[in-house]
Amino acid sequence: MSLEKCDIGVVGMAVMGQNLALNIESKGYKVAVYNRDHDKTKKFIEERASNKNILGTYTYEELAKSLNRPRKIMLMVKAGKPVDDVIEQLLPNLEKGDIIIDGGNSHYKDTNRRFKYLQDKGIRFLGTGISGGEYGALHGPSIMPGGDKSAYEEMKDIFEAIAAKTEDGPCVAYLGPSSSGHYVKMVHNGIEYAIMELISEAYDIMRKVFRLSADEMHEIFKKWNDEHKSYLMEITYKILEWKDEETGKPLVDVILDSAQQKGTGKWSVQDALDLNISIPTINAAVNARTLSAIKHERLEIGNIFDTPVNNSLNNDFINSVRDALYIATIIAYAEGMKLLQVASSEYGYGLDLSEVARIWEDGCIIRSALLKPIQKSFKSKPNLVNLIISEEFRKDFENRIPKLREVVSEIKKIGIPIPAFASALDYFDGLRSKELPANLIQAQRDFFGAHTYQRKDKEGIFHTEWQDIHNI
Amino acid sequence: MSLEKCDIGVVGMAVMGQNLALNIESKGYKVAVYNRDHDKTKKFIEERASNKNILGTYTYEELAKSLNRPRKIMLMVKAGKPVDDVIEQLLPNLEKGDIIIDGGNSHYKDTNRRFKYLQDKGIRFLGTGISGGEYGALHGPSIMPGGDKSAYEEMKDIFEAIAAKTEDGPCVAYLGPSSSGHYVKMVHNGIEYAIMELISEAYDIMRKVFRLSADEMHEIFKKWNDEHKSYLMEITYKILEWKDEETGKPLVDVILDSAQQKGTGKWSVQDALDLNISIPTINAAVNARTLSAIKHERLEIGNIFDTPVNNSLNNDFINSVRDALYIATIIAYAEGMKLLQVASSEYGYGLDLSEVARIWEDGCIIRSALLKPIQKSFKSKPNLVNLIISEEFRKDFENRIPKLREVVSEIKKIGIPIPAFASALDYFDGLRSKELPANLIQAQRDFFGAHTYQRKDKEGIFHTEWQDIHNI
Repeated sequence: MSLEKCDIGVVGMAVMGQNLALNIESKGYKVAVYNRDHDKTKKFIEERASNKNILGTYTYEELAKSLNRPRKIMLMVKAGKPVDDVIEQLLPNLEKGDIIIDGGNSHYKDTNRRFKYLQDKGIRFLGTGISGGEYGALHGPSIMPGGDKSAYEEMKDIFEAIAAKTEDGPCVAYLGPSSSGHYVKMVHNGIEYAIMELISEAYDIMRKVFRLSADEMHEIFKKWNDEHKSYLMEITYKILEWKDEETGKPLVDVILDSAQQKGTGKWSVQDALDLNISIPTINAAVNARTLSAIKHERLEIGNIFDTPVNNSLNNDFINSVRDALYIATIIAYAEGMKLLQVASSEYGYGLDLSEVARIWEDGCIIRSALLKPIQKSFKSKPNLVNLIISEEFRKDFENRIPKLREVVSEIKKIGIPIPAFASALDYFDGLRSKELPANLIQAQRDFFGAHTYQRKDKEGIFHTEWQDIHNI
Repeated sequence: MSLEKCDIGVVGMAVMGQNLALNIESKGYKVAVYNRDHDKTKKFIEERASNKNILGTYTYEELAKSLNRPRKIMLMVKAGKPVDDVIEQLLPNLEKGDIIIDGGNSHYKDTNRRFKYLQDKGIRFLGTGISGGEYGALHGPSIMPGGDKSAYEEMKDIFEAIAAKTEDGPCVAYLGPSSSGHYVKMVHNGIEYAIMELISEAYDIMRKVFRLSADEMHEIFKKWNDEHKSYLMEITYKILEWKDEETGKPLVDVILDSAQQKGTGKWSVQDALDLNISIPTINAAVNARTLSAIKHERLEIGNIFDTPVNNSLNNDFINSVRDALYIATIIAYAEGMKLLQVASSEYGYGLDLSEVARIWEDGCIIRSALLKPIQKSFKSKPNLVNLIISEEFRKDFENRIPKLREVVSEIKKIGIPIPAFASALDYFDGLRSKELPANLIQAQRDFFGAHTYQRKDKEGIFHTEWQDIHNI
């Protein structure tokens, strides 16, 4: 190794950290790496990083000393307490103006707290969402940085070098102040939950109603993906053709139907509730994972209520499922963009939603051909009230909502759970309803709790003495 | 007034506080009252409390001096900071062993904090949910106390005297330690949201599909209530016949369809997410209020996508709506009871769910004939995995789920939003599914994030090298 100092440090040598370090090095930068477990660092240096411009360090002091100033240190450690721990141990070794980049899935409220804490100490902080999984980290992720703008300028060259590229540029942009980057990543993951659930419901319909095999569904999803050009659909058809080495069966058929979650989907729903924003398809996807996890309860209840699926649908119906999946996927993006729009104004992020869509066009898990028209939609109308009324998708809604309606209607008759499809349709039907029955709800609230109501025919707050309780 | 000391103090002279004080006094107790705004106290003493055994006090010192020891002081103030403020001002005037009862809709986490804070100072605290609205407070509410057990014993006589009564006893019971009372009240309100939304969706179907008038629906709900015997359905049919004085129209027709919420429904959903419990019908009800509130967005979107309702359904369908509403209401209770069951074990409440159902049998907003079989269900099987498989409701599920299915299927074809009906059905279909498509989701998670999966055919945690990313 030369004695020349390093351009950037990476803390955390799990696969994501390793791959990111290798990605940065491959673009001509010298990288210092650190891991709490020194053996992991050593192994990385000796194997994957051998003969590369990557320096293993074994104390935070050594790491800090190895870096050009202002130091740039990227944390690729588990979200939560580990991030705070690393920051505390780093701090004595840093100087004013140095930059910490948190590249994990931190809760945006933690990022707000850390931003302020570090700002007070003169350290610049970038809460940065990174999407693309292990492969993306190595070959070009989508990068969602927010926080100190001058720190972004210092990091810009590295970020742009390592990010995925599209004809619209590298998949990275300064998103806004404080926690904006992690917030955008959280919503990205919420949309990801929804799309995964929608694909899985389409799969469930095809296997339960039409008794299609994994191989047959592989062909179908592969064909559907000509239109979606979506990463999640691509891995779906690849999964469906994968055979289990032990049994020879399709691997998907031997995997337990019990899904886990790590929090970002749940956080999206919880924060949407706090912001009074309805994101029912994302919400349904989170709930669906929750229900899947209680397999033992489902078996007990299924023993009482499970009934065989009677299919009177013909194969044309599969094309309706295709259209339903397509339009429900757009609705999932619409919910996420709406949440971002409101959060941006509520939290002062000043997000440019067309830029958000642009940096999702490649590298990240929810990349798909839909991101381009989404980008255009918000480019031409930054304050678009909802993506579902974008001109870009008008024809899709006109043509495919009837198919989504057909799928929900027929499948609920049959009794297969399709919470995400049903929620997407109900979101559409709710949004287009000039009249909802909430007038009755307000009347009920006023009746039992004197919560008052508004009228249609004039301004003001009204209350009715439904019962004169003083005299009863 | 005699110089004899008072049995209990009530702080907060809004209608709920006034009515509770009057209720307690009517049972033979002497009550001291206090309000921050002294004029309100004075007015109450001179008017509604005149010639009653109620003492107005105008400082916390005066209030404290007027009370027998251990002092019992009930706070009927707005949840949130006002509760903390009153506690701080009360404290210097209290002595060890005195009892504070918070009768508002406090968040259970605040109640946990206050319980510990006051325990350290030797003050006994009861976080107490009270349901029944203004009328219930005066004539007999359902009371849900949790916290210090010895404090409950001191309060028991007053609680039992003022609570609603059923053949099974007064609608009050010591529910458990710390925040258990406020948690039970929170879930009560979550169920309340769901039932209100379900009733409103039934109303929406009848007015939009069958063009029924408010008077016609008044008759229908009144008849349906022979079965439900539910407070919420009772106020619904009373609302539907109420005429607006100004226009002569049914009042419900002039009320704006924009519902508000005060937080307990949202808290239920957020906490269920933290506990990994699915409560989709309650969740949908909260979302529906959220969507109702953005009336201006709905008008804009409705101008593009709103279509007239074409009805090809015959009047028999209204009977299906009746059955759908009945079974979906049971599902709403099932979700709430499940949340309580898991929260009880997670938070160490030790709730007796049959007691919870019993004290909801009268006085509270969600009282209905269904509470009796719910009570029986948990009495015979305290660890019942889900209320939907209780023997008490077996016939209802067999007979009416097909009707709920018909309603969801037909109405989604027509395009009226019915998020709560659809979610209740999907919850049932999800719970009875021995196989959900979560195997595909776990495969996707393992593909892009190496999150591993379980297998159906053997124990263990597995990972597939879907792509050897090191060599790509």
